[in-house]
Amino acid sequence: MQLPPEELEARLRDFQKSLQQENLDAALILQRIDLYYYSGTTYLHSLFIPADGAPLGLTRQELPYRPPWPTLRLTTSADLGNVIASRLREGALIGLEFDVLPVNQYQRLAAQLPAYRFADASPLIRRQRARKSAWELEVLRETARRDLAVWEALPTLVAGARTDLDLAAGLEALARRQGHQGLVKFRAFNEEIFFNVILAGPAGAAGGPYDTPLSGRGVSPTFPQGASGVPLRPGEPILVDYGGCYQGYVLDQTRLFALGRLPFELRRVYDTARRIQDAVVQAARPGVTCGALYQLAAGLAEESGLLAYFMGPKRVPYIGHGVGLELDDWPVLAQGSGVKLEPGMVFALEPKFAIPGQGAVGLENCFAVTATGLERLSPVADDPVIV
Amino acid sequence: MQLPPEELEARLRDFQKSLQQENLDAALILQRIDLYYYSGTTYLHSLFIPADGAPLGLTRQELPYRPPWPTLRLTTSADLGNVIASRLREGALIGLEFDVLPVNQYQRLAAQLPAYRFADASPLIRRQRARKSAWELEVLRETARRDLAVWEALPTLVAGARTDLDLAAGLEALARRQGHQGLVKFRAFNEEIFFNVILAGPAGAAGGPYDTPLSGRGVSPTFPQGASGVPLRPGEPILVDYGGCYQGYVLDQTRLFALGRLPFELRRVYDTARRIQDAVVQAARPGVTCGALYQLAAGLAEESGLLAYFMGPKRVPYIGHGVGLELDDWPVLAQGSGVKLEPGMVFALEPKFAIPGQGAVGLENCFAVTATGLERLSPVADDPVIV
Repeated sequence: MQLPPEELEARLRDFQKSLQQENLDAALILQRIDLYYYSGTTYLHSLFIPADGAPLGLTRQELPYRPPWPTLRLTTSADLGNVIASRLREGALIGLEFDVLPVNQYQRLAAQLPAYRFADASPLIRRQRARKSAWELEVLRETARRDLAVWEALPTLVAGARTDLDLAAGLEALARRQGHQGLVKFRAFNEEIFFNVILAGPAGAAGGPYDTPLSGRGVSPTFPQGASGVPLRPGEPILVDYGGCYQGYVLDQTRLFALGRLPFELRRVYDTARRIQDAVVQAARPGVTCGALYQLAAGLAEESGLLAYFMGPKRVPYIGHGVGLELDDWPVLAQGSGVKLEPGMVFALEPKFAIPGQGAVGLENCFAVTATGLERLSPVADDPVIV
Repeated sequence: MQLPPEELEARLRDFQKSLQQENLDAALILQRIDLYYYSGTTYLHSLFIPADGAPLGLTRQELPYRPPWPTLRLTTSADLGNVIASRLREGALIGLEFDVLPVNQYQRLAAQLPAYRFADASPLIRRQRARKSAWELEVLRETARRDLAVWEALPTLVAGARTDLDLAAGLEALARRQGHQGLVKFRAFNEEIFFNVILAGPAGAAGGPYDTPLSGRGVSPTFPQGASGVPLRPGEPILVDYGGCYQGYVLDQTRLFALGRLPFELRRVYDTARRIQDAVVQAARPGVTCGALYQLAAGLAEESGLLAYFMGPKRVPYIGHGVGLELDDWPVLAQGSGVKLEPGMVFALEPKFAIPGQGAVGLENCFAVTATGLERLSPVADDPVIV
C-alpha cells in the first residue's frame, strides 16, 4: 500500500512549520521509520527537508517506489555533505534525530560540514508523529479488525498449549499467516520488544531489564522477555500481550486467560485494572495532561490497596504509551508529564499488576483521542477468558 | 545458563589490555549486549571498566543475577556522572560505544562530565567480541546441534506450505517451540533482521533497503524483508535463510529448496556458489585477509560469468559476516578489507546470486577459524533439497 501523495504533502507542510517555529533551517532525516513517514519509502538513504521549499531524497540505490520529492543518487560518502552545503548558507542550523543517531555517524557528518550547526529535531518529529492523520487512523482501525482473528483463536490456542512457549509459537504462526511482519519497531536505545509477551503463572510476575511493566523471563539471558517454557497450569493467570501489526502500524492489546478458573483474589486484581481503565477512559479528552491520567490511575490502585504491585515489580512510572509506526510512539502517559492530549493521538492504556508468587494480571487496549474524548480501537471484549 | 566467572575475568583482562594499548583511562559500557558480554547480565544500567582495577556495575534495579564485579545502585540521573568523576582524574579519556550510543545520551553524559574527554571504544569491543573464546565456541556448536531439528523438518514444511509466508510461519513455530528467542540482535543503525528470510520464486531476487545481499519484499512497506505471501511453485528456487539462536548466540545458515525440480541453469548457479564456498574454505586460515577472500570469491563468480548477479541486485561488497551475540558481529569478509583472520573468529559465508526473473540461489554456512584453517559449524548437508 502506497502513501497517498496528499498525505505526504500534509506531513511535509506540518513539519516545515515546526522547523520554522524552532528556527531550524533544515532537517536531515536518517532513521528508517522517519524516512518512511516523510517519504513513503524506507529505501532512501536520507531525506533533506529545508524549512522552506521542496525536500530532496538522497539514495544509494534504485528506488522501487518514487517519493513525490525530487531524488538524487549519492555515489561517494562525501556527496551527502556536498549536497547539504550547496543548499544551505554557512552557519545554518540543521536538525538531526539525536535520539537515535549514533555518535560516530553524527561526528562524521559534522566533520563534513564544519561551517554548520546541528540540533535535535527528534522532539519535532515525535510530536508530529504522535498526532495521527485521518489516513493513519484508518490504517490503525484496519490493524484492529485484522487482529480480531488472532484474538478469536486465542482461547483454543490457550486450551491446546502445554507451555507458554507453545502458546507463543501458536499465536505467532497464526499472526504471521495473517500477514504480521514479525518484527515490531521500538525506537528507544537498548529497548526492544518481540511481537508478543506471554506471562504465565508466578514467573509472569518477574520484572525484566526493559522499561516495561512486565517482561517475562524469555528463553535466553540476552533477551529476557516473554515466554520461557513454563507449563500452563489450571488456576494460574496467563497474560497475553500481543502487538498486532498491519502496514507497519502496531496496536497493543493484552488479555487475561486462565485454565479452568481464576482465583478470587486475582479476579479482584483484574477488576481494579478494569476500573482504572474505565476511569482513565472517562477522564481522557483533549487538554487533559498525561500526568493527570497517571495520577488518577495510581490513586485508584492505592485505594484498592494494590499500589505496591501496580505496573510491575519495578513500578514503571507510566500507565500507557503511544502506538503507531513504533511501539514506543509518543505520548507517554507518565507520572508528572505535562503533555496534553490532542485529537489524533493514539495510545495503549495498560493498567497491570504483578502479584508476587501468583503472576501478572491486567489488560491493555488502544484508544484514539477525538475532539471530545476517546475512540476505542481494540474490538476485543475486556473480560478475562476462562478456558 | 550463567557465564562462568573465569570467562568474565578473561574478557575483562583482555579488554583492559586493549584500553591500555589505546591510552583510554576507562570505558563506560551502556549497550545491552556489550553489558551481557562483560558482566553476564543485561539487567545492569551500565558497567564502568577502568583500564586497571575492578570494574563497577551500575544498576537502577534489583539484579536477578549478580555479576562477579561490585555493583552500585543509581538513584538519581546525576549519580552516573558523580560516580565516574569520583573514580577518574580530570582530563581522563573515557571510551564509549560511539557506534550505537545516540547523540542525545552522549551529550547528556558529556554535560555531566565537562572535565573529561571521550573516545570511541566500540572498535575495541567489536574486535574482542570477534574472537570467540572456547566457551563461546561450545555454545555456538550447541546452537548448530539444536538447529538440526529445524533443518531436518524443513523439507516436510516446504512440501506442505502453500506460500512463502506459510512456510515462514511453520519454520518459526518449530524454532520457537525449540527455544528460539525470536528476536535476533543486529548492531548497525537502521539495519534489522527477522530470524528467517524466505526468498521464493522471482520475487526472491529483489533487493531491499538493507545492507544484505537479498532481502525479499516482506509484508509491510516499513519492513521490506522476507516472505511476502507469494505461492510456492514447482521449479522455482526457494531460498531459506534461518538464524538459529541458543543462549543469545546466532548461527546463520541458508539452503536452497525446490518443489519437483530445479531448472538446470539454476543448478549451475548453485554449483558456482558451492564452488565459491569450497574455495574460500580452502583458502581461509589465520593471517589471510578478509579482502583476499572476497577477491577470491568475486573472481570465481566472474569466471562463471555470474558476477553481475553476485551478492544480490545491489551487489553488496562482502561475502560473509561475523556471527555471535549479534548477527553483524565482526569480521566482515568485505572487498578491500585488510582485517586478517584470527583463531576464534566465527563467520557466516554466504555466496549468493539473484537471477532476475528467476529468483535467489546460493548457500550459507558458519565456520570458526582454527589455528590452521576452519572448523565448519553448520551440520546440515550443502546440497539443494528437491521435495
